[in-house]
Amino acid sequence: MSTANDLLASAQAVVEDLVAANRILYRQKVVDGFGHVSARHPLDPERFLMSQSKAPGSVERSDILVYGLDGEAIEAPGRRLYLERYIHSAIYAARPDVMAVVHSHSPAVIPFGVTDVPLRPVMHVCGFLGEHVPVFEIRAAAGPATDLLIRSQALGIAMARALGTAPVVLMRGHGSTAVGTSVAHAVYRAVYTEVNARLQADAMRLGPVNFLTPDEALAAAETNAAPNVLTRIWDLWKSEAQS
Amino acid sequence: MSTANDLLASAQAVVEDLVAANRILYRQKVVDGFGHVSARHPLDPERFLMSQSKAPGSVERSDILVYGLDGEAIEAPGRRLYLERYIHSAIYAARPDVMAVVHSHSPAVIPFGVTDVPLRPVMHVCGFLGEHVPVFEIRAAAGPATDLLIRSQALGIAMARALGTAPVVLMRGHGSTAVGTSVAHAVYRAVYTEVNARLQADAMRLGPVNFLTPDEALAAAETNAAPNVLTRIWDLWKSEAQS
Amino acid sequence: MSTANDLLASAQAVVEDLVAANRILYRQKVVDGFGHVSARHPLDPERFLMSQSKAPGSVERSDILVYGLDGEAIEAPGRRLYLERYIHSAIYAARPDVMAVVHSHSPAVIPFGVTDVPLRPVMHVCGFLGEHVPVFEIRAAAGPATDLLIRSQALGIAMARALGTAPVVLMRGHGSTAVGTSVAHAVYRAVYTEVNARLQADAMRLGPVNFLTPDEALAAAETNAAPNVLTRIWDLWKSEAQS
Amino acid sequence: MSTANDLLASAQAVVEDLVAANRILYRQKVVDGFGHVSARHPLDPERFLMSQSKAPGSVERSDILVYGLDGEAIEAPGRRLYLERYIHSAIYAARPDVMAVVHSHSPAVIPFGVTDVPLRPVMHVCGFLGEHVPVFEIRAAAGPATDLLIRSQALGIAMARALGTAPVVLMRGHGSTAVGTSVAHAVYRAVYTEVNARLQADAMRLGPVNFLTPDEALAAAETNAAPNVLTRIWDLWKSEAQS
Repeated sequence: MSTANDLLASAQAVVEDLVAANRILYRQKVVDGFGHVSARHPLDPERFLMSQSKAPGSVERSDILVYGLDGEAIEAPGRRLYLERYIHSAIYAARPDVMAVVHSHSPAVIPFGVTDVPLRPVMHVCGFLGEHVPVFEIRAAAGPATDLLIRSQALGIAMARALGTAPVVLMRGHGSTAVGTSVAHAVYRAVYTEVNARLQADAMRLGPVNFLTPDEALAAAETNAAPNVLTRIWDLWKSEAQS
Repeated sequence: MSTANDLLASAQAVVEDLVAANRILYRQKVVDGFGHVSARHPLDPERFLMSQSKAPGSVERSDILVYGLDGEAIEAPGRRLYLERYIHSAIYAARPDVMAVVHSHSPAVIPFGVTDVPLRPVMHVCGFLGEHVPVFEIRAAAGPATDLLIRSQALGIAMARALGTAPVVLMRGHGSTAVGTSVAHAVYRAVYTEVNARLQADAMRLGPVNFLTPDEALAAAETNAAPNVLTRIWDLWKSEAQS
Repeated sequence: MSTANDLLASAQAVVEDLVAANRILYRQKVVDGFGHVSARHPLDPERFLMSQSKAPGSVERSDILVYGLDGEAIEAPGRRLYLERYIHSAIYAARPDVMAVVHSHSPAVIPFGVTDVPLRPVMHVCGFLGEHVPVFEIRAAAGPATDLLIRSQALGIAMARALGTAPVVLMRGHGSTAVGTSVAHAVYRAVYTEVNARLQADAMRLGPVNFLTPDEALAAAETNAAPNVLTRIWDLWKSEAQS
Repeated sequence: MSTANDLLASAQAVVEDLVAANRILYRQKVVDGFGHVSARHPLDPERFLMSQSKAPGSVERSDILVYGLDGEAIEAPGRRLYLERYIHSAIYAARPDVMAVVHSHSPAVIPFGVTDVPLRPVMHVCGFLGEHVPVFEIRAAAGPATDLLIRSQALGIAMARALGTAPVVLMRGHGSTAVGTSVAHAVYRAVYTEVNARLQADAMRLGPVNFLTPDEALAAAETNAAPNVLTRIWDLWKSEAQS
């Protein structure tokens, strides 16, 4: 990307993917009226893009705002912002490798946040879950009487610390947050975290589960993040979200 | 609202919300062919609005009738009325704070009405469930041979007593009734009571559940009843119900 | 109905309901590509109406054939017939009160046919299940090597004997058959047998279940079979099946 | 089929079925963005037909390529191929009776691949599962650090050996593969393997399960593979997939 036109095209593509991601996540039942998805600004790593406060299923290009890494919107007079925009800002600040963030209350994941059962990969497409999916307990950071929301940069930082280098962090009594190296990658992880949670719970009811080994998880995660594979499912989701 | 026009506009908005609520509840699978939703009359707190007897999914503006707090319709010659309209009349009489009522047989809630397991909030969007969701046992009020329906004002009063100051009452072998300070609020509570029931049952199968503390439930309920948050999901539901 | 025109109109209505029932049962996921629904002939109680062999979701008026109580079609050259038409013929022969029959493999009911857990009513809309839902074990009638289908009038008679005076009979390793006093009534029972099976299984996983008493079941069944109530849901289903 | 025209018509029909199968499997939720289906070449048993690498739900006639029994495409410059095409090539090489292959990650089947619970037929439409559904453990063939994919003809051969003469093989931590004597037959088996897995898991939670006897399974499998029966559901699926 050596020219201004290339840069512009690349930025346009990110905005398009972000709008599509909002609709895809709704269609895939990862989000309902709540939840949000963001992308790091393609031209300025100290900023990120996210909708104004709106149900993801109805987000349009004109809803996308620019935010700073303190979680505040740049020039957005009169726009309502998501209360939990600090989930995104704190992760972008802590994780230079992260280019997109999905926060959701996807249903099958909730039980793993409120019990002691660790979420572990049961199948290759969920290999990215790796050896350990951390759980963020907001009581440890802010006491026993919060509304569980990440309402400040301080809480965002505490949550990002729990996330560490993982691809996903569960949030007790609240939901989960998945990150990725692109919008498609973060969406993929959010969708398949939900798939794994449902299938792991089902499998555990049958008997002891033969999980992926750490090496299998790593190898499978690499395969499924390859453009050849990720693009196949992303293109399908995108075309459906536009229909 | 100082003028007659303002009052009229406000009343129109309630009727519109009520028609939308019928369709939203069907679309969200809270009601099937059965169930009903009402709103306190915006101009006369001694009356309420509800459809004639009709499947909620097909209710239109012309189906909406005016009822008194005795459960009888005002001037509705030839219209069939819901057998259980007394659920609504008794609650409006007992609870001046209630502006809307949803009665449903939403599926995941049924098991909590027929077992001894208390329904408790597993996540912030269900914080309104608070510390205790009461169960109405019609046998205690009317013996062991009823058809379980709230067929009279007397039974409605017994059920409203079980509801007390709670946001939701489960009805053993029958369904549940949620109340709210607006149509959107009562619909929100009916939808998320169903969500909580499903997720609580799933979580309990994994292991002991870390529920919201009473303080967390209270704080989360306040956050989610704020117009900013409630409107986001209500507008989405409404636009979908009209499409 | 004193005139020929009245009789004709009544017969037309039954055929219309039967076509609608095929589509409704598919839409409600009671049948998939398999299953069938019939109505006793409105003008001749010794005959019944049912589609030729075809997936229920695509049945049209021209598919409806007339059958005798021996299970054979009257004048249907070149038409393929359902292998299991004897389910219907044997029940019409044994049960003069039955005006319609639905045979399906509706999923939540299957587990109750292959385990020792009796299906019992957990809620009022399923009160028709009453005190006892029989299970037909084809091995008792035809040994351990059948294909489980009701392929002959003799097997139909054995199954009808297991049904007895009940509203529904489960068929081990196969499905279930519901009967009613009208097409709408039999469809209602087939749909809510499935609903009850799912909710009873869910409730049993939570803890001991407080089922309807026999008197409650009886009273609730009467209420829900009343035209006022049954028509409400039937009209909804019918209008959806036509859209 | 004695003329060139007959042969051509037959080949056309297989291609049409294959395109339909891709869309049917997506609509039936057997595949999501992943999974693939193939058919043995109708004119050359040493070749098979399958889409280029693409989400099954969007496969069109122009995506269908010809492959050899080594898993490589014949004249397909610039086309991306499924990484796991060797599942298909190895099975066609080992099983002359197989005319179509479906590989999927259908969800209810996954738990049976990662636990010690054998998949067994609970109902007649799933009788084809027979007495024993094998599980392929890739660790036995390729050690503990693979990405679980069948990336080579050697792995395909190991998997085909695990399949043996069975209709379906489960693949631990990955998915399953169903085979059949026609495209419709393999799709039927893939769909009803998923149905059986879900219902068997549900039944096992209720109590000990009364499975089909081996003789019942055999008889039921024959009945359901008969053109009369298979065509009924296939025609429905096909017409829906085209709408």
